[in-house]
Amino acid sequence: MATRSAPTTGRTKKKAPDGPAPRAPLTYAKSGVSIEEGDRFVDMIRRDVRRTHGPRVLDRPGGFAGLFRLDFNEKLFKRNYREPVLVACTDGVGTKVKIASDTGRYDTIGIDLVAMNVNDLIVEGAEPLFFLDYIAAHKIIPEQLAAVVKGISDGCRQAGAALIGGETAEMPGVYPEGEIDLAGFAVGVVELERATSRERVEPGDVVIGLESDGVHSNGYSLVRAVVKEAGLHLDKVYKDLDKSRTLGEVLLTPTRIYAKPIVALQRAYTVKKIVSGMAHITGSGLGDNLERALHPKVDAILDPSKWPVTPVFTFLQQHGSIDEDEMRRVFNMGIGYCLVVRPTFAASIATRLKRAGERPHLIGHIVKGSGKVRMTDRE
Amino acid sequence: MATRSAPTTGRTKKKAPDGPAPRAPLTYAKSGVSIEEGDRFVDMIRRDVRRTHGPRVLDRPGGFAGLFRLDFNEKLFKRNYREPVLVACTDGVGTKVKIASDTGRYDTIGIDLVAMNVNDLIVEGAEPLFFLDYIAAHKIIPEQLAAVVKGISDGCRQAGAALIGGETAEMPGVYPEGEIDLAGFAVGVVELERATSRERVEPGDVVIGLESDGVHSNGYSLVRAVVKEAGLHLDKVYKDLDKSRTLGEVLLTPTRIYAKPIVALQRAYTVKKIVSGMAHITGSGLGDNLERALHPKVDAILDPSKWPVTPVFTFLQQHGSIDEDEMRRVFNMGIGYCLVVRPTFAASIATRLKRAGERPHLIGHIVKGSGKVRMTDRE
Repeated sequence: MATRSAPTTGRTKKKAPDGPAPRAPLTYAKSGVSIEEGDRFVDMIRRDVRRTHGPRVLDRPGGFAGLFRLDFNEKLFKRNYREPVLVACTDGVGTKVKIASDTGRYDTIGIDLVAMNVNDLIVEGAEPLFFLDYIAAHKIIPEQLAAVVKGISDGCRQAGAALIGGETAEMPGVYPEGEIDLAGFAVGVVELERATSRERVEPGDVVIGLESDGVHSNGYSLVRAVVKEAGLHLDKVYKDLDKSRTLGEVLLTPTRIYAKPIVALQRAYTVKKIVSGMAHITGSGLGDNLERALHPKVDAILDPSKWPVTPVFTFLQQHGSIDEDEMRRVFNMGIGYCLVVRPTFAASIATRLKRAGERPHLIGHIVKGSGKVRMTDRE
Repeated sequence: MATRSAPTTGRTKKKAPDGPAPRAPLTYAKSGVSIEEGDRFVDMIRRDVRRTHGPRVLDRPGGFAGLFRLDFNEKLFKRNYREPVLVACTDGVGTKVKIASDTGRYDTIGIDLVAMNVNDLIVEGAEPLFFLDYIAAHKIIPEQLAAVVKGISDGCRQAGAALIGGETAEMPGVYPEGEIDLAGFAVGVVELERATSRERVEPGDVVIGLESDGVHSNGYSLVRAVVKEAGLHLDKVYKDLDKSRTLGEVLLTPTRIYAKPIVALQRAYTVKKIVSGMAHITGSGLGDNLERALHPKVDAILDPSKWPVTPVFTFLQQHGSIDEDEMRRVFNMGIGYCLVVRPTFAASIATRLKRAGERPHLIGHIVKGSGKVRMTDRE
C-alpha cells in the first residue's frame, strides 16, 4: 500500500467560473467552465508533484485527499515518535504575487509559498512532512499554473516535504483578468519534549542570524510603491543593484528555505537542548519577529554592524527616501532566520550551519530584560 | 503543556495591501496597512476559535504554527493508532462566496469551507483532527471577517475538528472592492488497515445516499446565471421555493457536514469492513463523484425515484430551462454523500445514520461492470 508516487489529488475538482449570462437553455459550459484546460493542467504538473513524494505518500486514486504515513516501518526511515505533536501552518505570499504577474514569471513564486509556511514550522522544532496548495485565478492558463506548481514542487524538495494535494479554482467573478492568489498549508511533526519553548531562553544566550536572499515575501506593497513612485522598471538592469539581473529578477528572488539545515541541526544535538528559540523573519522586520522567541524576562541586544545589508535594501531605501527605522520595521534587512543558542555551542552551531550552506553571523546576545529586541545603534 | 486553549496563531501576520503611491518619504502605513483593524479582528474571533479546541491543542504563544497532539494519554481520549496515516485536503467554496457578498451575509460561508474539506477526509475513513483557513480580501473589515471565522468555527465544531490556525491577507491590488476568497485545509487520521480502499466494492453491495441540504458548494456559476437571466432577486421570497426564506437564504444554506455520523459509524463496526466505499457529492454531480468510489470491474445502478429532489433544484431547473441531464451533471440533486455497503448491513447502517440525524435512502446497488454509474431512468 505504500508506494512511491501518488496522483495529484484534488486538482480535478474545479470551481466553475462566474461567466457571462448565457441564453436559455443554460448549461455549465456556457457558464464558462473549460474541463479540457483543467485536465491539460493536471497532466502538466503530474511529474513535478511526484518528484516530491517518498515512500510515506500513499497512492489512493479516486479520492480528493492526500495520504501520508506518519510512521514508516523501514530501517532507513524509522523515526518513531513517542509523543508526536503535529505542527501546522498556513500562509500566502502577499503582494509578491503581483511581481510575478507583472514580470510574467510564475516559476519561483511557489518556492516563496513553501518557504513562508515551512520556515514557520521549523521554528517550532518540527520536521516538515507535507504540503498542500490552493491556487485561484481569473482564468486557469495551464502553462502559467504549471509554472507555479513547478515552483511549489521545487520548494517542497528543498524543504523535504511531500506535495500531496492541491486545489485550483477559476473564478473570474472574484479575480480580475490577470490576477492570481496562492495559499499554502504545511504540516510537520515534533517530539513533544523537543518542541520549541521560549521559556528556555536565558541571559548569556547568543543570537545567530542566517542571511536572507533578499526581500523574501514581506514588504512588497512598499516595494511596489517605491518602484512606481521613483519611476523604476522591473525589466531594467540597475548597475548599482546588480550587474546582470533585472530589477524584477532581483525582487523575485525566492524566499530562502531554511528547513534542511535546521532540521539536521536539531538531529545533531539530540540530548542537550542547545537551541533555546528560533524566529523566521517575516512581516514587521527582525525586531518584531525575534521578540516572539523571547519571554517577558529577557531582552535581545543586536548589533547591526555584525551582518551585511543586502544590496536590494540599500537600493530601495535610496530610491524611496525611506528612513532607517521604517526600513527596519518593514524589511528583513539581510537576516532571514534567527536561532537563540547556548553560548558554549554558538561557534559549533554556526560552523555546522555554514557547512550546510547557510551564511550565519553572531548578531547579538540575550540579557535580563522585558521581552524587547534592542539595536546597539539605537541605545 | 497540554492546555485547553490556544491563541489564534498566524492571524497577527498581515500581508500589506497594494496601496496608492504615496509622496516620499514612503512608509508602510502610507502604503495602506492598518495594524489596528487587524488587531481588532483578532480580538473578535478569539472566543469563536477557542471553542473548537480540546485538550490536544497546545498553547504556544509567539509562533505562527498551530500545534496538535496526535496521541493524548488520557483514558477518555486514548485512541492509539498502530500505523497512523495522516489524511489532508484543501478546498475553497468557489463562486458561493459571491452569494455571501451579494447578500452581505458572511456567517455561514465558513461552514461550507469546513464541509468541503472535512467531507472529503471522511471518505478516506479518516477522523478529522484540525483545520486551518486562509482568507484574502480587498479590505479586512473586522465584522465581516469575524463573521466568516464564526462560520468556520461553527463548522469545525460540527465536524469535531480544532481550528488551530489561519491567515488573513488584505490585498486590494489583487481583489477588487467587496471581493473575498477563502481556502481551507483539513487534516485527519486513519488507521492504515482501515483506510478506504475501493477494491473492496463488490457486486451485490448496496448504495446508501444521504440527503443534501441544498446546492451545497458546487454549481454556483450556473445558479448565478439563472438568477441573472431569469431576473430573480436574492432578497425576495418565492412561494414555490420556500414559504418564508428568501432566495438568498435558501442558496446560502450551508453544505451539510457528515463527519460525526460517519466517524461514529466507522467506530461502531471495528472488526468487519462493512463499508466498501464512500463518496462526497461535489462538482459534476452524483454520477461522477460516485464513480470515484468504484473500480473498473463494477458499475453502480441508481434509481432516481428512491430519493426526493430538493425544491431548490426544481426551482432552478424551471427558471433556467435547464434540461435534466445538465442538472444531473452540475448539481447534487438531493444526495450529498454516499456509502457503498455490504448488503447484510445496509438496513442497520441506514437505521444508525437516521438515528444520528441523517436522511438516508437506499438508492442503488453494485453489479459487475466497467466503472460506471448508471441511472435506471436512462437505461
